[in-house]
Amino acid sequence: MEKWRATTNLRRSLKSILNRQLKFRYLNEKRSCQSSFNLIRDCKSLGQVNAIQHRCFSSASTLVQRNPSFSTLNSDDISYFKGLLGEKSVIQDEDRLETVNTDWMHKYKGSSKLLLLPRSTEEVAQILRYCNSRCLAVVPQGGNTGLVGGSVPVFDEVIVNVSSMTNIISFDKVSGILVCEAGCILENLISFLDNQGFIMPLDLGAKGSCQIGGNVSTNAGGLRLVRYGSLHGNVLGLEAVLANGDVLDMLGTLRKDNTGYDLKHLFIGSEGSLGIVTKVSILTPPKLSSVNIAFLACNDYSSCQKLLMEAKRKLGEILSAFEFLDTEAMNLVLHQLDGVRNPLPASMHNFYILIETTGSDESYNREKLEAFLLSSMEGGLISDGVLAQDINQASSFWRIREGVPEALMKAGAVYKYDLSLPVEKMYDLVDDMRIRLGDLATVVGYGHLGDGNLHLNVSAPEYDDKILEQIEPYVYEWTSKHRGSISAEHGLGLMKANKIYYSKSTETVQTMASIKKLLDPNGILNPYKVLPHSLNS
Amino acid sequence: MEKWRATTNLRRSLKSILNRQLKFRYLNEKRSCQSSFNLIRDCKSLGQVNAIQHRCFSSASTLVQRNPSFSTLNSDDISYFKGLLGEKSVIQDEDRLETVNTDWMHKYKGSSKLLLLPRSTEEVAQILRYCNSRCLAVVPQGGNTGLVGGSVPVFDEVIVNVSSMTNIISFDKVSGILVCEAGCILENLISFLDNQGFIMPLDLGAKGSCQIGGNVSTNAGGLRLVRYGSLHGNVLGLEAVLANGDVLDMLGTLRKDNTGYDLKHLFIGSEGSLGIVTKVSILTPPKLSSVNIAFLACNDYSSCQKLLMEAKRKLGEILSAFEFLDTEAMNLVLHQLDGVRNPLPASMHNFYILIETTGSDESYNREKLEAFLLSSMEGGLISDGVLAQDINQASSFWRIREGVPEALMKAGAVYKYDLSLPVEKMYDLVDDMRIRLGDLATVVGYGHLGDGNLHLNVSAPEYDDKILEQIEPYVYEWTSKHRGSISAEHGLGLMKANKIYYSKSTETVQTMASIKKLLDPNGILNPYKVLPHSLNS
Repeated sequence: MEKWRATTNLRRSLKSILNRQLKFRYLNEKRSCQSSFNLIRDCKSLGQVNAIQHRCFSSASTLVQRNPSFSTLNSDDISYFKGLLGEKSVIQDEDRLETVNTDWMHKYKGSSKLLLLPRSTEEVAQILRYCNSRCLAVVPQGGNTGLVGGSVPVFDEVIVNVSSMTNIISFDKVSGILVCEAGCILENLISFLDNQGFIMPLDLGAKGSCQIGGNVSTNAGGLRLVRYGSLHGNVLGLEAVLANGDVLDMLGTLRKDNTGYDLKHLFIGSEGSLGIVTKVSILTPPKLSSVNIAFLACNDYSSCQKLLMEAKRKLGEILSAFEFLDTEAMNLVLHQLDGVRNPLPASMHNFYILIETTGSDESYNREKLEAFLLSSMEGGLISDGVLAQDINQASSFWRIREGVPEALMKAGAVYKYDLSLPVEKMYDLVDDMRIRLGDLATVVGYGHLGDGNLHLNVSAPEYDDKILEQIEPYVYEWTSKHRGSISAEHGLGLMKANKIYYSKSTETVQTMASIKKLLDPNGILNPYKVLPHSLNS
Repeated sequence: MEKWRATTNLRRSLKSILNRQLKFRYLNEKRSCQSSFNLIRDCKSLGQVNAIQHRCFSSASTLVQRNPSFSTLNSDDISYFKGLLGEKSVIQDEDRLETVNTDWMHKYKGSSKLLLLPRSTEEVAQILRYCNSRCLAVVPQGGNTGLVGGSVPVFDEVIVNVSSMTNIISFDKVSGILVCEAGCILENLISFLDNQGFIMPLDLGAKGSCQIGGNVSTNAGGLRLVRYGSLHGNVLGLEAVLANGDVLDMLGTLRKDNTGYDLKHLFIGSEGSLGIVTKVSILTPPKLSSVNIAFLACNDYSSCQKLLMEAKRKLGEILSAFEFLDTEAMNLVLHQLDGVRNPLPASMHNFYILIETTGSDESYNREKLEAFLLSSMEGGLISDGVLAQDINQASSFWRIREGVPEALMKAGAVYKYDLSLPVEKMYDLVDDMRIRLGDLATVVGYGHLGDGNLHLNVSAPEYDDKILEQIEPYVYEWTSKHRGSISAEHGLGLMKANKIYYSKSTETVQTMASIKKLLDPNGILNPYKVLPHSLNS
């Protein structure tokens, strides 16, 4: 009976479909879901203090020491940089330094006395050559939208910000290959390509601020990964400057090139610790105009998995998002956020799925999605569902999914984890955590199911070390045991540098460290980040 | 008038379309287009000879010297390996050694006295640990289907063949992620996945022999690259054994993982010179059943480019091949191959294009291709065209494209180049070569236009150094000047190790060499390959 009603509901929805094209912006889910309880909480402006305390591996406290082999700035250094870059690109003004010393979440703060704004690869090269010879530590910086304290100084590192390098060097409309400088803001590239009939293969909430050099350096994931894959597949070439000032020209614009080791991948996701990315060549897909969105309910996680499998098979070519949230997440959204309602009028369901398709043919894509939904409902995978009929409905569906982090923040204290796990194991962790925490806290699961990316959140009235002890290191150990990743897309930065062993073997980390030593023998590039502190100095 | 006839022809073809599903195998284009005049021609079995002559950079002759720091095998070594692997996996039989010492084209031949057949990662690790301690050089080998002399010994290197490592470790039907050992033959994986409703993201002519470990180590391109991208995007994880026997477990099964440097990419395409790949985790796409093929004519190269651009935009989701050949290539095929006819009855055209689409919905995909072809014809991009109506027609269209290398071989001497170039420049090289060679030879251009991969071939009655001098180093210099690749998909191996500078900068090659030195300090892994000989010893 319930199923019949549900089917009728979906059918009613399908019948009233308008062939109206949906165009809407994604809200910034990424930005709002990053704060983590176990961040460095004492990382305030420390002036001359040479050590900061933070939570690290297994939640034990430890000290980060300033590397004593690094020099401190002197007036000769300033004179050199002014001679090289000109007065205007050598910033010592305290207000401006305050901004670039602090991450956008105001959770990490360094005490750099110098911001440099190079305008060319050659200037970056000369800066690094000089800093390396003087053993001055450097933080490469782009839009400073990172989430793990990777893009601000820890102590007094010189900030090398590439925001002035904003040239689009070339765009080939035949191949869709864009070549540009590292400081190009993602949204500007999106606008540029829009005029050419193309899109960027990645899209982030932070698009208005983040820069392509930073996107590449952090291997940014974002909203289009399920469709277009990671930057390792889309970036065709890079130019990067090594710590010693050598410029590695790997700026290929070719889809196929098997001439030696593909070194550019070392710089994708190494968070500026191996070199500063100065130019990027990237493959961009053609713009597709038809977008459709469905909001569905499933009775159990097994159905969610099967639905994903079916969606990949039946919508494969046009599937562009497959997101999920559980009933606890939905409850929070409905209770905490104004104006949000459940589009499925029946009683609460255990799981909700948001499916988005993007294609070139509105009527066909719509029909395809409808046929898929009907067969999934008839097959018992979906217990209820609605299809957005206009841009407002589409936005309201996304609002539910994207409202989860905001609802969590409003509900009180929240312990947040951004994990990659095999899809079939993913929700077991949520169930385990519920058993583990009992009445102590509410456990919420949601995320990018299509990418195997779980946002595990634990909500409680207030922060309590007893809760944290139940969560950590259990969550990391669980993730490690199931060969998951403790940082699906945000990188390690300062926040998780010491947690790397949960996701990487000792031999692999050791090899990373030896490559770091090879390419940056003095360790001047983004020190204290990515690699565990025991190997980082 | 001509256009009207052509349109009518296409329309007639379109009208008589059958909704029959096309299933056919691709012939092996890759295998038959690899022989190159400037291969090592004197690389015969040299017994105790410690140097071999070959053509190298700028076509100057040079000597490859056996690295004197390498040990030679002794009876203690044999005893050790027999103790480790058992008698049956330690091969000294001359007939069996003959096979593994020689590449399948019989162009490269080593003189190894020992073939080892490990069955596990641990055995590979112990072999390498021992060889490294004894300074015994090693050639990693899979299916030995390489094209540049990378998978056979140059001198007396120990052959470590992973053919016995054929376990499929896991397959996740939800995510489509396959994990298997390196010795799995590609065709076996394709069959395994077919039963699960999935496909491999790569397909090669050599699929019946080549192994996934070798595919990954050589970053094999193949027939599906235009649709699914390169292995850098599809390989999610690897296990590799370093020269010193350390096992790097990078065998992630996650689409998202930003925890440190993504080292697996170093092993994708490094041709076994940095480590031996022992296990692979790979993302596999769902199987799609509908295939359609069109054979078209264009008046000029500019139209070919525009057609590609339109195809990417209008067929984007279903486009699976975009191949081209010029009128010289078509002439050769028609004159040299029995039973091949031009499906376009009008007079010869300047360019021919083969477009293939693959999707999940036969009638829709067919309609989509038809609509695209009609609009392209009305827009003047296509001067004529036909759509395959059954499997025989589809095969006959592919036969033309795939018959070009065979026709060239039959026509006499042929100088072959496999280049990646920006699409807009690609055919300029063919035109340049025609001017340069005049009546000396026929210049033929064809290849994977969708990937920017040109097969430039020069056909002449017989080999003549005067012709070669007109081609080399001009072709390499031209490719280099336009930031192309001198090896689009076959790697460098022994054949092109010294030509690397045409596609890579000095700093980049130097960095490659330092990474080689770091990971393989004694240089035991696949010596004399990939890196220029000046840096390889």
